[in-house]
Amino acid sequence: MTYELHYWPTIPGRGEFVRLALEAAGAVYVDIARGDPGAGQGLPAMQKMMQDRHQPHPPFAPPILKDGALLIGQTATILQHLGPTLKLVGRSDAARVWTQQIQLTIADMVTEAHDTHHPVAGSLTYEDQQPEALRRASAFCRERLPKFLQWFETIITRNPAGSRHLVGGKLSYADLSLFQLVEGLRYAFPRATQAVLVATPGVVALHGRVAALPRVKAYLRSERRIPFNQEGIFRQYPALDIV
Amino acid sequence: MTYELHYWPTIPGRGEFVRLALEAAGAVYVDIARGDPGAGQGLPAMQKMMQDRHQPHPPFAPPILKDGALLIGQTATILQHLGPTLKLVGRSDAARVWTQQIQLTIADMVTEAHDTHHPVAGSLTYEDQQPEALRRASAFCRERLPKFLQWFETIITRNPAGSRHLVGGKLSYADLSLFQLVEGLRYAFPRATQAVLVATPGVVALHGRVAALPRVKAYLRSERRIPFNQEGIFRQYPALDIV
Repeated sequence: MTYELHYWPTIPGRGEFVRLALEAAGAVYVDIARGDPGAGQGLPAMQKMMQDRHQPHPPFAPPILKDGALLIGQTATILQHLGPTLKLVGRSDAARVWTQQIQLTIADMVTEAHDTHHPVAGSLTYEDQQPEALRRASAFCRERLPKFLQWFETIITRNPAGSRHLVGGKLSYADLSLFQLVEGLRYAFPRATQAVLVATPGVVALHGRVAALPRVKAYLRSERRIPFNQEGIFRQYPALDIV
Repeated sequence: MTYELHYWPTIPGRGEFVRLALEAAGAVYVDIARGDPGAGQGLPAMQKMMQDRHQPHPPFAPPILKDGALLIGQTATILQHLGPTLKLVGRSDAARVWTQQIQLTIADMVTEAHDTHHPVAGSLTYEDQQPEALRRASAFCRERLPKFLQWFETIITRNPAGSRHLVGGKLSYADLSLFQLVEGLRYAFPRATQAVLVATPGVVALHGRVAALPRVKAYLRSERRIPFNQEGIFRQYPALDIV
């Protein structure tokens, strides 16, 4: 089964959480919008799919996963769908519920990190909302960033199966997403993030463990990994990195 | 099985999405934080549970559902867990994935609606961020509100089983949540919402159909239903209702 991932081709964004799961599991997938328009791929193929008026389940926004006849939007829903097949979630109901609960909390933090540079509207540029961004980033760095990272530290520390993973004793899609979250926070808010991470050694160790997984390591060095840049969720605006 | 719902006792907030599912299904539940502290309930009971240092799955924030030994946070995860038992989701994988995808899109809109009055920080009052709120509400009312509601209209219209529900031919937790979303939008942004709803008759009809369900109707008239107020997600600030 070849999965189709549909996501904006020039940013890691929310698509990266899906890409990491596919890569870590060694799944076969096509990154449609980054493909060759001459071969029926590229951005036009993604846009055509999104505008298909006969699609009964049109997603609200990318990322979108096509798995056979199933078309799925919303990052956390995609990961939950992929989890059992890619062996990136535990088998019990309790493990699945807990993994998804963590994933949605990661998603909440991702949205809040994004909104530091776009607190007014996604349709405006950062420069058009810079005063608001400064205020929001101050609250994010001082209140939200510690609160979220300390929660991740707490649940890692309390994991009855040990502190190598978020859920049970095996890698889950939530571990991969937490890795990406830490990557993004270190890129966007290097000083503020470091100030918190000194007190969350479990989060730092889990991040390092994910980075060292052979498939993840190979992927991170490949051209398939899109570097962070000034168009995505995590952007490097030093003024917003408030300690 | 008696469920325990843990949520802030004076606002509908995100807890209301869970409460509506429990009420519509006629489930037996205790609304812990609204109970009698003398009987071991009330806000202290919720806070004690959240601060339990031995809890391996501490939720990040309410609402929280206790179902036997399972403790679940994140509104959408709670609803997904309740869905099969309460018969508020279809049986097929496709129906379950689609229902959850819609729920997460409702959750995204709820967050954006909340952030109109708190675009800077939840720790500040509305008055402390009013200029930013005006700008964010303008973008929300003019761009996001139509985009989201038109998406709901599209998926209702395209439902192959007919336009009485969001998913298939039966009531799901997503229908109940869309009802609550429309209620909240009409309360917080009456003029802007009405301007969009004239073009989304499917959403209006579905809202009315949910309101008329016997159990929902009885619940809405009961004291168990907390009215919208100036503390929750949906607040009535006329300045933010921008057409």
